[in-house]
Amino acid sequence: MSCDLNCSFLNGKFCKDPNLVVVEDFFKHVDAGNTSNKLGSKVTPVSVNELFGLNTLSISLARIDFAAKGLNPPHIHLRGTEILIVIEGTLYIGFVSSNKNNGQNRLFTEVLNKGDVFVFPKGLAHFQLNVGYENTVAVAALSSQNAGVITIANAVFGSTPPISDQVLAKAFQ
Amino acid sequence: MSCDLNCSFLNGKFCKDPNLVVVEDFFKHVDAGNTSNKLGSKVTPVSVNELFGLNTLSISLARIDFAAKGLNPPHIHLRGTEILIVIEGTLYIGFVSSNKNNGQNRLFTEVLNKGDVFVFPKGLAHFQLNVGYENTVAVAALSSQNAGVITIANAVFGSTPPISDQVLAKAFQ
Amino acid sequence: MSCDLNCSFLNGKFCKDPNLVVVEDFFKHVDAGNTSNKLGSKVTPVSVNELFGLNTLSISLARIDFAAKGLNPPHIHLRGTEILIVIEGTLYIGFVSSNKNNGQNRLFTEVLNKGDVFVFPKGLAHFQLNVGYENTVAVAALSSQNAGVITIANAVFGSTPPISDQVLAKAFQ
Amino acid sequence: MSCDLNCSFLNGKFCKDPNLVVVEDFFKHVDAGNTSNKLGSKVTPVSVNELFGLNTLSISLARIDFAAKGLNPPHIHLRGTEILIVIEGTLYIGFVSSNKNNGQNRLFTEVLNKGDVFVFPKGLAHFQLNVGYENTVAVAALSSQNAGVITIANAVFGSTPPISDQVLAKAFQ
Amino acid sequence: MSCDLNCSFLNGKFCKDPNLVVVEDFFKHVDAGNTSNKLGSKVTPVSVNELFGLNTLSISLARIDFAAKGLNPPHIHLRGTEILIVIEGTLYIGFVSSNKNNGQNRLFTEVLNKGDVFVFPKGLAHFQLNVGYENTVAVAALSSQNAGVITIANAVFGSTPPISDQVLAKAFQ
Amino acid sequence: MSCDLNCSFLNGKFCKDPNLVVVEDFFKHVDAGNTSNKLGSKVTPVSVNELFGLNTLSISLARIDFAAKGLNPPHIHLRGTEILIVIEGTLYIGFVSSNKNNGQNRLFTEVLNKGDVFVFPKGLAHFQLNVGYENTVAVAALSSQNAGVITIANAVFGSTPPISDQVLAKAFQ
Repeated sequence: MSCDLNCSFLNGKFCKDPNLVVVEDFFKHVDAGNTSNKLGSKVTPVSVNELFGLNTLSISLARIDFAAKGLNPPHIHLRGTEILIVIEGTLYIGFVSSNKNNGQNRLFTEVLNKGDVFVFPKGLAHFQLNVGYENTVAVAALSSQNAGVITIANAVFGSTPPISDQVLAKAFQ
Repeated sequence: MSCDLNCSFLNGKFCKDPNLVVVEDFFKHVDAGNTSNKLGSKVTPVSVNELFGLNTLSISLARIDFAAKGLNPPHIHLRGTEILIVIEGTLYIGFVSSNKNNGQNRLFTEVLNKGDVFVFPKGLAHFQLNVGYENTVAVAALSSQNAGVITIANAVFGSTPPISDQVLAKAFQ
Repeated sequence: MSCDLNCSFLNGKFCKDPNLVVVEDFFKHVDAGNTSNKLGSKVTPVSVNELFGLNTLSISLARIDFAAKGLNPPHIHLRGTEILIVIEGTLYIGFVSSNKNNGQNRLFTEVLNKGDVFVFPKGLAHFQLNVGYENTVAVAALSSQNAGVITIANAVFGSTPPISDQVLAKAFQ
Repeated sequence: MSCDLNCSFLNGKFCKDPNLVVVEDFFKHVDAGNTSNKLGSKVTPVSVNELFGLNTLSISLARIDFAAKGLNPPHIHLRGTEILIVIEGTLYIGFVSSNKNNGQNRLFTEVLNKGDVFVFPKGLAHFQLNVGYENTVAVAALSSQNAGVITIANAVFGSTPPISDQVLAKAFQ
Repeated sequence: MSCDLNCSFLNGKFCKDPNLVVVEDFFKHVDAGNTSNKLGSKVTPVSVNELFGLNTLSISLARIDFAAKGLNPPHIHLRGTEILIVIEGTLYIGFVSSNKNNGQNRLFTEVLNKGDVFVFPKGLAHFQLNVGYENTVAVAALSSQNAGVITIANAVFGSTPPISDQVLAKAFQ
Repeated sequence: MSCDLNCSFLNGKFCKDPNLVVVEDFFKHVDAGNTSNKLGSKVTPVSVNELFGLNTLSISLARIDFAAKGLNPPHIHLRGTEILIVIEGTLYIGFVSSNKNNGQNRLFTEVLNKGDVFVFPKGLAHFQLNVGYENTVAVAALSSQNAGVITIANAVFGSTPPISDQVLAKAFQ
């Protein structure tokens, strides 16, 4: 049951004998995240890594907390579209379209308040910034059991080891 | 951009010329649902039918409101797993596993409070009941742009025209 | 060979070393089913559970036998469309569409005779009733190696433990 | 309903407005095929080309009739695994595995009688020969709405225009 | 990382602990193939069998070398489309469409020179012949980590054991 | 034939009547790219946008030319893994893994010479730099008919309109 295909081992995760599955396999509590960090935001994921019963089910969820002026910086999900709803507070959000038509990289932005829903299509760079004076809370769902994250600043300027200066200088001129 | 495959027409929905896409294609506001009905609950979907930009993206979302003792009755999503988070209030929820192992239809139940997350695997019958004295609000995400709903009471006992008594009597004895 | 992807372990089933595969991995005999039971019908599946060589191949088959007035009661296949052909006898069959358009749950029915073929789309509740005076035999194919079955009467009224009366009373009123 | 994704146009077929769908969209009668031809066999398909309601549902079916000594000659289905059940008569069947392990092309054969089920994995060359003195009837299901057929003799030696002698001579030596 | 889904075991291949992945998992050198054989051609594959890091990634590559008059004989890839580019030399290539429209098996041919790209759609029989006086080199990519090959001459006339004369005589008349 | 599913319209592209398909639908010539630009490199794609017959076939190809010191700057393919072979010259290449394990963004690099093959897994940022004194030519295949490109420098620092300084300053500190 926790693996659709009658499997005992799938996607690198063990599937349980259906007779041994328990309700806890489908349950997880999520608390407010600690936003005392440089970016002032915290993503608390509920992916297959935290909730085993998601294995093979192509969905996951996250709670995102933002302190005042907190930022979830530009990043890309390799394997999932994100749909986000604001629970409380105000977010300025954006995403950038891909290179189509020679260099077109359009930025789309919006200000979201409580009850607003927004879609960040799979594979596109996007960010969320708390532009209110209060904490902001959002729930995001992703179309993968483990959508993957590439934080662009880290991938390009913070990798281990660093990308060579020759590449970065030429690319970012 | 609103269709991953460079398409102008996909899944029965038109895709826009990428040059004509606007940010509103990805945005939708959701208000509290009106629970003044027999079941005391209201599902407000944000699927591809309400938010065009979800086309081809394999995810959708819904806000679910429950009055005190409100019920989201046993139903099945044909095309999606549901992951739900309680925003406020208390839900008694359950799902029933399929027929495996000769007639095994195990019921799994849980009481969920604020911040609890629960997974209802694709295709299994499930329900949610507000067991608190206050309104309850949940956000549910589904792994399909249009997950489909079969409300079991309606499908079996409320179809148009009705299923013949001979079938129902023998099936439900 | 019995696993398309050069695998030795897939979908929770072991795949054989191609050098060890034998023709019996692809062969299964099916006898007439015993219909001496309350419903007067018997489904004899040939899924990946009975025929190992189906692993990863997205198809399975079943023989369905009906005594006079025998019923295959309303049920749902989670993971497969069914296409059925009547080999001998007469069936009254039906399926119910999903909730689209506010509570629309249309029942579609037909009487099938020898040589008639009918499609039950994936995820929709359907049934088959022998309305002749003789035994009826049908062959059904399903678009999954293990399509899964939810017999609605069992899932809703016969689960272990039972669904609470409060939920059932409100849902079925 | 005849297209899972709320579509009006998919896979090159129009999908109907759900309000206009009728039960005939899911129904097709199949008669015995005429085996008065050189091969002494006749395949009568029920694919999306014959039964519109199969669109997007990943399954189709065929009735195969064989006169005494009739042959369904070596062929390949591009897009589907075949699972076959013998309804009456006797078939000698076989399939050939692919090139794995340098030139290994193992032939697997079996004699099938009434009630025997056999799987021909997707993409492998296979044939069926009536080795009884009576007509034989089989039902085959395929894991595609339109599995495609390549009859090897036609593709290699009977194409229009023919493959050049230089290629055929060198390939078949 | 070498398995997208956070897995340690997928598609029958072990996935590495991401902390143990090394750059060699993504690297392979390919030399010119030895064409001193009866067909005068040599395919050097870089599939998941040769390059572990391709696991789950749905692509592979091959270098194909042809001596003068060398032939890559009619064959079918079960699981992949091929796109080929000529690096040096001249090829006469062709593929045959499937049986649609009663026995239509159209042969499509072309002569390719350096820089020419050609697509052989998944599942269709195709061949490549060096029609120049010099060695020819091509690079082919396939839309599968392990596309599979059925060399038609081997599958039909060279299987182990052979297909019975009764079948072959009737099929090829 | 140029659309697998018997379609006349799929993925936003028209499919031809199989009787009207011609060999040119599968053929495209690719010349050396002009590298006289700031980056000193040129990608010449053969995707479904350039070669119609690729529609629905999940693969495409590109020729990449590099002048001395030419760079194909850090970019991401949304929908495809890339497998690359060096035809002539020398490339220094790299890719960065995703965020797994708290901020781990490992850089993997290699120097590739003629005949070397390298895999850039789907969704990961990667680059290629000509470190030789001569022109370099590579052929890359991608596991999508239209893999999509996000050039990171353009997406983050060159979008239209630009991403706000408040976001960039906080993200890149």
